[in-house]
Amino acid sequence: MIKAAIIGATGYTGVELVRLLSRHPQVEIGALASRSQAGQSYGEIFPHLVSARDRVCVSQEDLDNLVAESDVIFTALPHGHSFPVAEKVIKGGKRMVDLGADFRFDDYRVYEEWYGIKHPSEELKPYTVYGLPELYRERIREAKLVANPGCYVTSIILGLAPALREKIIDPNTIVIDSKSGVSGAGRGASVNTLYSECNESIKAYNIGCHRHTPEIEQELSKLYGAPVTVTFTPHLTPMTRGILSTIYARLEKNLPAAGIIDLYREFYRKEPFVHVLPEGVYPQTKFALGSNFCFIGVAVDKRTGRLVITSALDNLVKGASGQAVQNMNIMFGLPETTGLEQLGLYP
Amino acid sequence: MIKAAIIGATGYTGVELVRLLSRHPQVEIGALASRSQAGQSYGEIFPHLVSARDRVCVSQEDLDNLVAESDVIFTALPHGHSFPVAEKVIKGGKRMVDLGADFRFDDYRVYEEWYGIKHPSEELKPYTVYGLPELYRERIREAKLVANPGCYVTSIILGLAPALREKIIDPNTIVIDSKSGVSGAGRGASVNTLYSECNESIKAYNIGCHRHTPEIEQELSKLYGAPVTVTFTPHLTPMTRGILSTIYARLEKNLPAAGIIDLYREFYRKEPFVHVLPEGVYPQTKFALGSNFCFIGVAVDKRTGRLVITSALDNLVKGASGQAVQNMNIMFGLPETTGLEQLGLYP
Amino acid sequence: MIKAAIIGATGYTGVELVRLLSRHPQVEIGALASRSQAGQSYGEIFPHLVSARDRVCVSQEDLDNLVAESDVIFTALPHGHSFPVAEKVIKGGKRMVDLGADFRFDDYRVYEEWYGIKHPSEELKPYTVYGLPELYRERIREAKLVANPGCYVTSIILGLAPALREKIIDPNTIVIDSKSGVSGAGRGASVNTLYSECNESIKAYNIGCHRHTPEIEQELSKLYGAPVTVTFTPHLTPMTRGILSTIYARLEKNLPAAGIIDLYREFYRKEPFVHVLPEGVYPQTKFALGSNFCFIGVAVDKRTGRLVITSALDNLVKGASGQAVQNMNIMFGLPETTGLEQLGLYP
Amino acid sequence: MIKAAIIGATGYTGVELVRLLSRHPQVEIGALASRSQAGQSYGEIFPHLVSARDRVCVSQEDLDNLVAESDVIFTALPHGHSFPVAEKVIKGGKRMVDLGADFRFDDYRVYEEWYGIKHPSEELKPYTVYGLPELYRERIREAKLVANPGCYVTSIILGLAPALREKIIDPNTIVIDSKSGVSGAGRGASVNTLYSECNESIKAYNIGCHRHTPEIEQELSKLYGAPVTVTFTPHLTPMTRGILSTIYARLEKNLPAAGIIDLYREFYRKEPFVHVLPEGVYPQTKFALGSNFCFIGVAVDKRTGRLVITSALDNLVKGASGQAVQNMNIMFGLPETTGLEQLGLYP
Repeated sequence: MIKAAIIGATGYTGVELVRLLSRHPQVEIGALASRSQAGQSYGEIFPHLVSARDRVCVSQEDLDNLVAESDVIFTALPHGHSFPVAEKVIKGGKRMVDLGADFRFDDYRVYEEWYGIKHPSEELKPYTVYGLPELYRERIREAKLVANPGCYVTSIILGLAPALREKIIDPNTIVIDSKSGVSGAGRGASVNTLYSECNESIKAYNIGCHRHTPEIEQELSKLYGAPVTVTFTPHLTPMTRGILSTIYARLEKNLPAAGIIDLYREFYRKEPFVHVLPEGVYPQTKFALGSNFCFIGVAVDKRTGRLVITSALDNLVKGASGQAVQNMNIMFGLPETTGLEQLGLYP
Repeated sequence: MIKAAIIGATGYTGVELVRLLSRHPQVEIGALASRSQAGQSYGEIFPHLVSARDRVCVSQEDLDNLVAESDVIFTALPHGHSFPVAEKVIKGGKRMVDLGADFRFDDYRVYEEWYGIKHPSEELKPYTVYGLPELYRERIREAKLVANPGCYVTSIILGLAPALREKIIDPNTIVIDSKSGVSGAGRGASVNTLYSECNESIKAYNIGCHRHTPEIEQELSKLYGAPVTVTFTPHLTPMTRGILSTIYARLEKNLPAAGIIDLYREFYRKEPFVHVLPEGVYPQTKFALGSNFCFIGVAVDKRTGRLVITSALDNLVKGASGQAVQNMNIMFGLPETTGLEQLGLYP
Repeated sequence: MIKAAIIGATGYTGVELVRLLSRHPQVEIGALASRSQAGQSYGEIFPHLVSARDRVCVSQEDLDNLVAESDVIFTALPHGHSFPVAEKVIKGGKRMVDLGADFRFDDYRVYEEWYGIKHPSEELKPYTVYGLPELYRERIREAKLVANPGCYVTSIILGLAPALREKIIDPNTIVIDSKSGVSGAGRGASVNTLYSECNESIKAYNIGCHRHTPEIEQELSKLYGAPVTVTFTPHLTPMTRGILSTIYARLEKNLPAAGIIDLYREFYRKEPFVHVLPEGVYPQTKFALGSNFCFIGVAVDKRTGRLVITSALDNLVKGASGQAVQNMNIMFGLPETTGLEQLGLYP
Repeated sequence: MIKAAIIGATGYTGVELVRLLSRHPQVEIGALASRSQAGQSYGEIFPHLVSARDRVCVSQEDLDNLVAESDVIFTALPHGHSFPVAEKVIKGGKRMVDLGADFRFDDYRVYEEWYGIKHPSEELKPYTVYGLPELYRERIREAKLVANPGCYVTSIILGLAPALREKIIDPNTIVIDSKSGVSGAGRGASVNTLYSECNESIKAYNIGCHRHTPEIEQELSKLYGAPVTVTFTPHLTPMTRGILSTIYARLEKNLPAAGIIDLYREFYRKEPFVHVLPEGVYPQTKFALGSNFCFIGVAVDKRTGRLVITSALDNLVKGASGQAVQNMNIMFGLPETTGLEQLGLYP
């Protein structure tokens, strides 16, 4: 049994880790750490998590002990808070999956520019791998520290990877319009994410300046083999979970949708969690609700020569905690789908 | 491996059976029968059910064959349509869980009065058991034909069983106010269940005449040992899944909430799927979303001497398909929670 | 033109007053006061309120001036905060509609018991009238200070008034199950009212101890002519606006629904905002969305001899700001429906 | 008083016309015609429309009479059904606002290609004007037959008109990603628009082939003075009302957002229903809920040189029935905002 600790266990991605790991046959959930709710009964805060209802949230202050008692540590923290944990984990010879942004960047100066804080852990870079299994599976296997990708980013890279690697689109024409459920904004009290503010309404936010932009561009550039710059607009959508990214780019070649679908299917042939839909079928976020799947639809707007990709996933599963468990499975040599087999909740 | 057929596989409870059984380690899904969509690709209708995407819906006309090839048949059909299936299943020596109302009544005249059709299968009664495991587990073990309870009914019986069996309430004062998600109305096209009609609105319907009423009264009367009559009002609530029943009754004895909670906990001590919440904590339907749990909250309105029970479950899981799988587990001697371990999807 | 100031102009009922008064032909909106957002541009906070977008929130500290410049003051404040305003308004010879609870009780000891604070303004009682026009229209006409009823309370009193005054029900058997949209909880940041917490979920709260209970009982007792005690359970429902109260009571006489509907229609014959629906038709909250209407459905559960009333309104309109404007119209001798003619937003 | 008939009075846009016209001081609502519900009580179908509850739906068969008795006829019908009405209206010397697509195209061959039916009324073209007041106010004044624009189209043209007329963007780079509430799909019974299918889910549909595309291109081309081709992707969003269009195009000139906002404000300086928001403020659909407003946000993605316009309106008001009333006001010489002054319903 793998002993797994969760730091940040009372946020939405932390709770989702508990839900998924509770049913993972090879994992024993260890410490549930929470800064804001240390000392409180986990079961009182989340009565529905019956498997963890007798647990008490621990403080994350006694990090040494927490690391010593765990095989793997999941960190689900605001940016800037994973550095001290990572240092202890690496020093302690343990492994870590960080669900935040602190270790996602190849060039830490990009992180510092977009997140506005200094990156103090340059020396951890050799231990770090960007945790998108579909691109970096082999390296994740050996990694000590996996930087779990952003939720929007996962939907977008999976949606564009085959097209960019095969160079069938013009990388200067990429426009990404993403729609996210409100849970992406986290469990913090805020007027902007009150039910009455979000219900029966949709809006764009952070147009041209969302922090997932450089992460998207980093990965797309590597796939394409040259710098790629994109316009990315996230939207707050009246649903709890789910991300749908609608991605536009000019086709370099006059390809029919069927041919591009073949290409996508070949690219993802062995992937257990990526499903390329048939021609004319487009994903809805509900397809992925509560599951680790990503569904991809491919369309060609023949009149304008544009490829239109739609990519749907659950922001808290494949977009966060499910992918973290997938990464853990790879790191520990387990079948990649262990504990992640459940289908989307429909309707 | 148990081979399971589903008749009515394209309705919401049928689809939910596919979701649950896909992850059941002892079940192989056999025929998926649908009257309205026979011959169509299951994966085209439900692209998210990736485990069944290469299946084709069969007609339910070749019943003999379907029964012969299955160990257990789940019927998820409108009332009146399970009779012919049941006859073949019993004759063929197989077993069946019927998610409809056709076999739920001890007295078929009650069925005939409330459902307005003749019950043609009186001779099947010896094979039939009402499928609420918390009350009839032992008899379900041997049953050939299990009549899965109604969704509202499950939430209500579980909420009232301890109080009635212990006779702490006056059975003439029971008022039941239930709130259901829209999926309870099924997948049929209808103006009344359009998104735009149901969203941002709640309403009562079938006041004093809902067909679950006699089923509720049948079971409550047996629990109490004398006839019980109730006022039952269902409400259509703007959510997809979930039932919350708020149940009121005058206390016979001056008991504090804590004592009643103890009594409830004792009653459900060994039950894996029923959770009685601590004093002052009341369930919300989200606690049970996608899970087979029922959560029960107990309150006492001291000023009026009334007990107020709140009981929450997912109408498609513990209220239908999950309970059907639980019944199947019991019938086939499997651990009762097999395939049903998942926690509620929160948030 | 009546000059109207709003104190508490950035909460949901304050904003709703701005929406309604903006289209009132006899009102000029004066000061918009806000403690938390004083000095901010009203249009920046609420860009959609285009009629007020050039306004700046004032502090409520310069009360003397604010009162001096206004003909009527609306207070939409947490309980305990309306006392100093009321004193200045009465002293200044102006008029006030208080949307909070501070002046709703005939016996201030009840207020002190349920709200836990001392009531310092006993001397204002002669100026105060409980602002339910359907019961107290004549007294409102002359009142200096109108205590606008609670949102739940309005739906419940309107639903029970004819039955209690005509004594057709047993007042000891009243059970009230109310369902409210989330906007009833206000615009304050809180985890409990986040979109992700409330969406796709319903729950009961404050069972047996909600502060609207004594207010309900005060008014029902006066209608009946003897003390009435009720069980009242509010529910948080996944919608922004709307209250549906389902009210149960044992009938004293064996009356058919049609007869009771006649009695209700006679009671509300001249009321512009109360609509009693035909037999078999039950209201949904959407009927009243954005309007000042209250819709009432009447059913009889013949099997148990219970009357089941359903009463639906918009908690922010007839349940708060719309009723406040209705009261203002009465106080200033205007036609009662002025500025309140709009129909429910459907779908 | 203008006597207004509505043909198609039981669909969502028909009902919305009743809501708006009920409060229009210069209009008397005449015939309410419905093919599917002729002979039924309007008040029984829509109990909340209390102003029309004593009306009975008439058949649209006696068109001659209906036209004779009306000053203006609103048609809210599926495409292909407005032709016979229009012919009678023009012959009878009356005026008409058609909410469908039958008369929106300058070149009827485009209509025939996209809608797949023959256009039989070429001779009505001289009487017809495309009913977007912000572009064609003067011509609408004299028109006999106004073709009310499509809901998506209105949000898009208003969002792009200033940029295209001022030629600040490259028309070959326009990508339009629109999100609509479910009411846009109408009141017909359909599995795809059931609550349980749409709730907690978003999806794209009709990618590259939605029928609003040629209408968008017709108007954008006229604004630009040369043919414009766009990629347009509509999305079904889990809300009842509202359209948000996010519009992307490469800037021809290096302009800051502030400068473009000035240009937009100048363009819409005299428009009562179009509001250009300040820099950094983006509209949400709730801003416009129930109102005839369109809110426009302007952003520049400096990194890629793209303009990103967000345009929000209520699909049933400015996107349909409200705009129809606005057109009627213009046609009859009334102040354009008559009956349309209400602000958005928030929250």
